[in-house]
Amino acid sequence: MDVGRSWHDATQRYALVAFIDANLRGASQVLLQNNPATGLIILVAVCWGAVDAQTPRAAIGAVAGLVVGTTTALLLRIPHAPVREGLFGFNPLLTGVAISIYLRPGALMWIYLVIGAVVTTVVTVATGAVLKTWGVPPLTFPFVLTTWFLLLATYQFARLGNIAIGRPALPHTLDQRAAHVHVTAAFLTPSMLKDVSEVFLLGNWVTGALILVALAVSSRWAAGSAIAGAVVSTLFAVWVGASASAVAVGLYGFSAVLTAVALGGVFYHPSRRLVPYMLFGIVFTVVIQAALGTALAPVGIPTLTAPFVFATWLFLLPKRDLVQTEHHELPEHDMLRTR
Amino acid sequence: MDVGRSWHDATQRYALVAFIDANLRGASQVLLQNNPATGLIILVAVCWGAVDAQTPRAAIGAVAGLVVGTTTALLLRIPHAPVREGLFGFNPLLTGVAISIYLRPGALMWIYLVIGAVVTTVVTVATGAVLKTWGVPPLTFPFVLTTWFLLLATYQFARLGNIAIGRPALPHTLDQRAAHVHVTAAFLTPSMLKDVSEVFLLGNWVTGALILVALAVSSRWAAGSAIAGAVVSTLFAVWVGASASAVAVGLYGFSAVLTAVALGGVFYHPSRRLVPYMLFGIVFTVVIQAALGTALAPVGIPTLTAPFVFATWLFLLPKRDLVQTEHHELPEHDMLRTR
Amino acid sequence: MDVGRSWHDATQRYALVAFIDANLRGASQVLLQNNPATGLIILVAVCWGAVDAQTPRAAIGAVAGLVVGTTTALLLRIPHAPVREGLFGFNPLLTGVAISIYLRPGALMWIYLVIGAVVTTVVTVATGAVLKTWGVPPLTFPFVLTTWFLLLATYQFARLGNIAIGRPALPHTLDQRAAHVHVTAAFLTPSMLKDVSEVFLLGNWVTGALILVALAVSSRWAAGSAIAGAVVSTLFAVWVGASASAVAVGLYGFSAVLTAVALGGVFYHPSRRLVPYMLFGIVFTVVIQAALGTALAPVGIPTLTAPFVFATWLFLLPKRDLVQTEHHELPEHDMLRTR
Repeated sequence: MDVGRSWHDATQRYALVAFIDANLRGASQVLLQNNPATGLIILVAVCWGAVDAQTPRAAIGAVAGLVVGTTTALLLRIPHAPVREGLFGFNPLLTGVAISIYLRPGALMWIYLVIGAVVTTVVTVATGAVLKTWGVPPLTFPFVLTTWFLLLATYQFARLGNIAIGRPALPHTLDQRAAHVHVTAAFLTPSMLKDVSEVFLLGNWVTGALILVALAVSSRWAAGSAIAGAVVSTLFAVWVGASASAVAVGLYGFSAVLTAVALGGVFYHPSRRLVPYMLFGIVFTVVIQAALGTALAPVGIPTLTAPFVFATWLFLLPKRDLVQTEHHELPEHDMLRTR
Repeated sequence: MDVGRSWHDATQRYALVAFIDANLRGASQVLLQNNPATGLIILVAVCWGAVDAQTPRAAIGAVAGLVVGTTTALLLRIPHAPVREGLFGFNPLLTGVAISIYLRPGALMWIYLVIGAVVTTVVTVATGAVLKTWGVPPLTFPFVLTTWFLLLATYQFARLGNIAIGRPALPHTLDQRAAHVHVTAAFLTPSMLKDVSEVFLLGNWVTGALILVALAVSSRWAAGSAIAGAVVSTLFAVWVGASASAVAVGLYGFSAVLTAVALGGVFYHPSRRLVPYMLFGIVFTVVIQAALGTALAPVGIPTLTAPFVFATWLFLLPKRDLVQTEHHELPEHDMLRTR
Repeated sequence: MDVGRSWHDATQRYALVAFIDANLRGASQVLLQNNPATGLIILVAVCWGAVDAQTPRAAIGAVAGLVVGTTTALLLRIPHAPVREGLFGFNPLLTGVAISIYLRPGALMWIYLVIGAVVTTVVTVATGAVLKTWGVPPLTFPFVLTTWFLLLATYQFARLGNIAIGRPALPHTLDQRAAHVHVTAAFLTPSMLKDVSEVFLLGNWVTGALILVALAVSSRWAAGSAIAGAVVSTLFAVWVGASASAVAVGLYGFSAVLTAVALGGVFYHPSRRLVPYMLFGIVFTVVIQAALGTALAPVGIPTLTAPFVFATWLFLLPKRDLVQTEHHELPEHDMLRTR
């Protein structure tokens, strides 16, 4: 593509363009891609969803987190290559969205967000150093860990109230009626699109559709895997009797979408044998989603994308054992770079 | 033994016998042994306890988990040697027992159990890959982690109710009277045998006695260590004032029995210096048992064998430092293979 | 110094003096120093604080933990060098203080304390073996982990009541009024000195001042960093609206003081670039302090120095990435030895 080549040339010539390129790739890395066009469409999708939900600050928070994260990585003088691929932008981006959505708006909230984005970057380097031992990537764990700390802390900070997370409560068994669902296309289609948009903590089907387009621009395998993740997780959640309202807004699918992209389109070579493995990965992501819903209830914080992180780690760690017996070569370097 | 040799020959000739052998060894691996006869007696003991408690489904769940786990390992094409030693059977076996005991019976429960057994096997490979770094074995951690997720999730799945785990509640200090115990042989003997049988979540003294026989068939050191674990943990629990009813059904001893077998009969060479080390390991297992009882109360799940896993890891990790100064050779390979 | 040289000579000649030296260094290692004079002043400071709070048993607990820990390390026959530097004394010392302050006094409490000190030493070896992989030190994690288990367990042990930790409760948002503070020197000065003394679970400004003197004897950088940690953490906590009474007794600063000493004076070479890095580390320690306050509320245990441990690990792990780009040599050996 002409546009693609000119853009690439510009990134080589102008530091500002290179910086913008790193940030756009960072936005695409939330869905495990490394593509500035994908990142641009994702940012547009996030803006749409944020404005539509009357929380435009979520879009500003996303961009603020992204830029602060990338800048922090440059100031820390860590090697340039991964910074340019956006690997230090996507976690702070998500921290930015979460803080701007869950906290009471105000000057202090923005300062807290910037601190959170800087620390998320440090945690990304730290997590990467630990996980290098086993050849698995940090995924969105730096965002999850840092944001859990930031949100838990707000209960003790009177000037930093959280306004949009559930009150701490002991978990209780779900009522049968709350799980009642008429499984129709009219129920499933928007709920699955919201599965995709909830990756950015937004329940908006247009945002979800735009993100799928963004994924397809970068990799059709990834887009297909995302759809498979949304379909399978929604059907499984409905089948075991999960809360119908939670399924409807995409809360049972956003982590599963990411697991599906990670297992199906990024870290493993697609193959027929992979299909059942990936299905178990998606299903277990839904189980972890429900489990963390129970486990975190008494402390009043959301799961964020932790179910994706835990399930994907558990299904990626066996990689060497599985792949070696198939006499595939280990794409070690690629794997570490992609994420 | 003639029977032993014929059996060994048959495993070499017939794939089905080899498969059965791997499963029987898997049953014996729950108590850290690698012996098909031990495994057979253990399965008989579990059947007895399950039928006696009027939950025969626990025995079916055990066998289902065992077979699904071993089969999954074969389908994943991981190296054959550890599969044949039963190292991929014992964790799914325990997952099968737990799911069939704690969940409402029904078709969905059995499907959930099979999913759980498959995932437990994946988690076993994942955990093994992580722990290889420090030369410690996964023990029953894959069972604990997977089953915790599966049980926590049931609170959110209306069609998968849990029926036999405590309701979530804030922990509170134990009443003095609840700890009152007349320490007599009539109290201690059945309670210690139940310590052994509670490894399989069954409080049945016949099952416990049979398991001790099974252990003795494989290793007298292991059987002796198990008895030591039961005696010491029960006495310590009574002494510090643990709930008398919990002690009576073996809840303070099942993890300690496993810790004792691991430290006293499997991973360390028996020696006089080991005795106090092992005693502290047993006592601290009881402390962790009580601690997790408190920590898990608000989320309403049982400790499973986590106290054994955590205590044994903490007391195995110093191995290299301790053993090297004694100028013992490090039986690295053996240790990793045994478990 | 003459005294210093004679002392050093005496440690070479007499086993008892060497043992005392190791214990004094152990006391100094709580603040990441390796200096017997510092350790002596710290023990005096702890005695003062314990007697002044009418809990002299806290001082006895500190010395008992210290001596039991060092002795256990010698009995375990781990290499002598780190034992002599006090690296196996400081964690059991803190376990001793915590058990003697939080538990109901009595014979059983002292036995529990000794068991805890022995296990803390085992956990120190275990933690060191794990963390060696990434070149970060255990810090006070062995104390935190072991004491959390010991305290959680007391809820289930009727004869071992805890008397001074908060009852389990669901967390709730802090009232604005509880955060109201007149920021004056009269408020800040004692609160900052208590930040230092709360490292030993004592809220006593004289103890804090003495510990600062002890630090200055060993390293002015460390003393300066400790003051910076106390000032920055207190101001940040007041600014975001933390509980005024908690700030006043030093609960928001003791972990931050340790983080500041670790980042500013021990594990990194002081440099201008380090200042903002260290500031973020201190601020995030306060965030983790508040976060763990929320997270541990339902299980009724205190944070201990966990915020220091977690924050310092997260800010130390990037070390290799950061330092290599600066073309500094990696003082690997020193780092591991110092702590």
